[in-house]
Amino acid sequence: MPKSPNTIDGRLWDELRHAAGEGNVTHDLIDLVSYSYDASDHFGRPQAGVWATDTHQVSRIMEWAQRHRVPVLPRGAGTSLSGMTVPAAGGIVLDMNRMNRILALRVPDRLVIVQPGVVYANLQKALAPLGFFFPPDPASGSVCTIGGNVATNAGGIRGAKYGVTQDYVLGLEVVLADGRIMRTGSKCMKSVSGYDLTKLFVGSEGTLGVVTEVTLKIHPLPRHTVTASIAFEQLSDAGRAVSQIVQAGIVPCVMEIVDSVCVGILRRQAELEVPDVEALILLESDGQTEGEAVQEMERALAIATECGGTHLKRARSREEAAKLWRARRALGSIITRLRPSFSVEDVTVPISRVPELLSVVQDISRRHKVEIATMGHAGDGNLHPAFTFDRSNPDEVHRVEDAASELFKATIELEGTITGEHGIGLSKAQYLAWEHDATALKMMKALKRTFDPHGILNPGKMALDD
Amino acid sequence: MPKSPNTIDGRLWDELRHAAGEGNVTHDLIDLVSYSYDASDHFGRPQAGVWATDTHQVSRIMEWAQRHRVPVLPRGAGTSLSGMTVPAAGGIVLDMNRMNRILALRVPDRLVIVQPGVVYANLQKALAPLGFFFPPDPASGSVCTIGGNVATNAGGIRGAKYGVTQDYVLGLEVVLADGRIMRTGSKCMKSVSGYDLTKLFVGSEGTLGVVTEVTLKIHPLPRHTVTASIAFEQLSDAGRAVSQIVQAGIVPCVMEIVDSVCVGILRRQAELEVPDVEALILLESDGQTEGEAVQEMERALAIATECGGTHLKRARSREEAAKLWRARRALGSIITRLRPSFSVEDVTVPISRVPELLSVVQDISRRHKVEIATMGHAGDGNLHPAFTFDRSNPDEVHRVEDAASELFKATIELEGTITGEHGIGLSKAQYLAWEHDATALKMMKALKRTFDPHGILNPGKMALDD
Repeated sequence: MPKSPNTIDGRLWDELRHAAGEGNVTHDLIDLVSYSYDASDHFGRPQAGVWATDTHQVSRIMEWAQRHRVPVLPRGAGTSLSGMTVPAAGGIVLDMNRMNRILALRVPDRLVIVQPGVVYANLQKALAPLGFFFPPDPASGSVCTIGGNVATNAGGIRGAKYGVTQDYVLGLEVVLADGRIMRTGSKCMKSVSGYDLTKLFVGSEGTLGVVTEVTLKIHPLPRHTVTASIAFEQLSDAGRAVSQIVQAGIVPCVMEIVDSVCVGILRRQAELEVPDVEALILLESDGQTEGEAVQEMERALAIATECGGTHLKRARSREEAAKLWRARRALGSIITRLRPSFSVEDVTVPISRVPELLSVVQDISRRHKVEIATMGHAGDGNLHPAFTFDRSNPDEVHRVEDAASELFKATIELEGTITGEHGIGLSKAQYLAWEHDATALKMMKALKRTFDPHGILNPGKMALDD
Repeated sequence: MPKSPNTIDGRLWDELRHAAGEGNVTHDLIDLVSYSYDASDHFGRPQAGVWATDTHQVSRIMEWAQRHRVPVLPRGAGTSLSGMTVPAAGGIVLDMNRMNRILALRVPDRLVIVQPGVVYANLQKALAPLGFFFPPDPASGSVCTIGGNVATNAGGIRGAKYGVTQDYVLGLEVVLADGRIMRTGSKCMKSVSGYDLTKLFVGSEGTLGVVTEVTLKIHPLPRHTVTASIAFEQLSDAGRAVSQIVQAGIVPCVMEIVDSVCVGILRRQAELEVPDVEALILLESDGQTEGEAVQEMERALAIATECGGTHLKRARSREEAAKLWRARRALGSIITRLRPSFSVEDVTVPISRVPELLSVVQDISRRHKVEIATMGHAGDGNLHPAFTFDRSNPDEVHRVEDAASELFKATIELEGTITGEHGIGLSKAQYLAWEHDATALKMMKALKRTFDPHGILNPGKMALDD
């Protein structure tokens, strides 16, 4: 991967300041240090931070960067769990957070047009009074940006029913590596006019271009939701319940599974009364009528009960439902505090193989003497095994690395994917070749070269730029 | 675009027979003539037809073709309305219809794995008893193939609620131009592992590779549907009704609009009692409970009535609903018989601009003295203006061409796309540059060169191979 020139001389910075506009470039250590991290444990310091203000300015910045072969990393909230937003090769961080305007809320057209720096939660706040929402729901929703959602193809707990970011991106405005501005897609619900450049950019981790505008399809908010939880003495019974619910043609908007480690945490820490079992399934169903939501839930619960589910609890109020989801969400942050370090994976398998993956995780945990707490989106086969450890203990770090790489291998053997929603970034770059055949990898690298021949866009990510 | 060698000598054909297997190559005129047409009015005769039997055979055929620079056109049922399956540059037609096995019905994983030659209707027949379906619904469903659905990113009348083919393709096996075999995507509900090669192939019209296996996400069949129709004295009121229904957060699984020309046809020919009005809207809503379907329908009908809708008819039985959809489907074939020739467009605009597009169509029809009957999927802004004319009358042909090109221009001015579901093929190749900016076109052409450097895959389509 191309490295940023070690010493970018004064003339170059003058040029950049001219391109970006006075006051939009920083070399302050406090800024550079902030830009050196994301939510992963990777680190890399940029030589400058640049605030993007508008498309033409981004175009001028990219022209400058391409001319001088300076790496550019577009960055939103920096919540990546895979090191996607860490400037591994130096260069400049292009901070998109000031391009944060909602440009149009076009409800009769079922779409919104936003700048990439719009915070996910702010978009939802603008849409809710209109009776609409943007269905993907990354856990970092309160701070992450739509640009980041597009770059990672963000998912979340509603994926089984509502899909992921890709399913909602109708069109983009993109600045290419050489500064050219390109529009993809359209303002229509569908189009088959030429190759689908839009979907190619979704999930491309800032390696193909800088997204400067996003057109998103929106969806009517469901008017009714029903929430319940059910416990399983045996993990395998929980897995069977998930499979049979899917087989019965039931797609709850949420079907979360948490393992015994998480059950233990919930029992010790949270505000819920949780039985001492191997697994819990948390369910939410929705509909425009109460009947639709209730009937779906009751069908799912009947199957879960037949599969050995016990301690069935239906939330009797919004507060009770909110309490359940608060506890589920709290799990992540509780886990991060259990030990000095943690890393969370997002391996995904075909739905029916969730129980196998869960027992693989338990086996890996035991053999490598690594603590793993697993929760996940059973409805779309996406599990989040969270490794907790102490980074100052080299032996433990080594065991965690071995355990993770074994987990990826096992996932692929189960016809799975090493990343369902966090992306490849730096964390999984070395594993990409395990999942894809040599031809697919070659074509991905060819795409990278086609869009970014000098490899200046987010170099090192996905390991596609060699 | 590369032309097939005019005289492919005997040795070449021997090599092809060796690669494809004895009995899988035809030069019979009766076959070549069949392969010269599709459902458009384009024509081009191939030098041979080859039956694909398996992935490795397709790989050998592509190696042969690339070595000798022979154009290859993969073909399913040949139902393309845009000339996508006409061998414009000669070469060989690769007939995929014998690769027609459903390889796996994995309901607990919510997916099926099929060969490209599986007929759409056969897949639905296999899925229905399991309570599932593949939601896209091209009008040619009784004969078209899944490979063709992937190549065109097929849509249909349920698009507003259920999306298009792209939303259901999880992974592909593809043979590239040089014979290399590549797998894309996964067997998981979601994956963000590397660039999304899958979606790039969906809708690429056989110009990037030959799809030899398709993994599709499936969806539970709704258990209840409700059907109704409502008439509008004023076309503009019908348009307003569509907008307001969408704005109210109602997404009927079908919301069809038919104009006064179609109303006239329905009044004369069909089995329905239809009032003499400017527009009809046909609605279907669905749900897992009757209440969900009924409530959605009643909300939509209340809005439609407020907007001036009259002659409201709720189907009181499955038979009545079937009669309505039979009449709607019959419209297409009745129109084809009105005059010696016809062509049907698939322009698409943002939903709220449907009424504007409808009045543009009327205006164009009047000014160019061309008969146009328009029906369409109002819920996703996709209209089908059908031009009827006499191809033996050069003046009339000229007027139709002028009218069509004016329609495309007007559609683009309304922020629309020239093709919502039929594809670019040959018919719209010359208009692609109207819709996309120069940079987007350049990148599409670069993608074509990346995957097919010698331009042997379906040359001439989309005009991306120059």
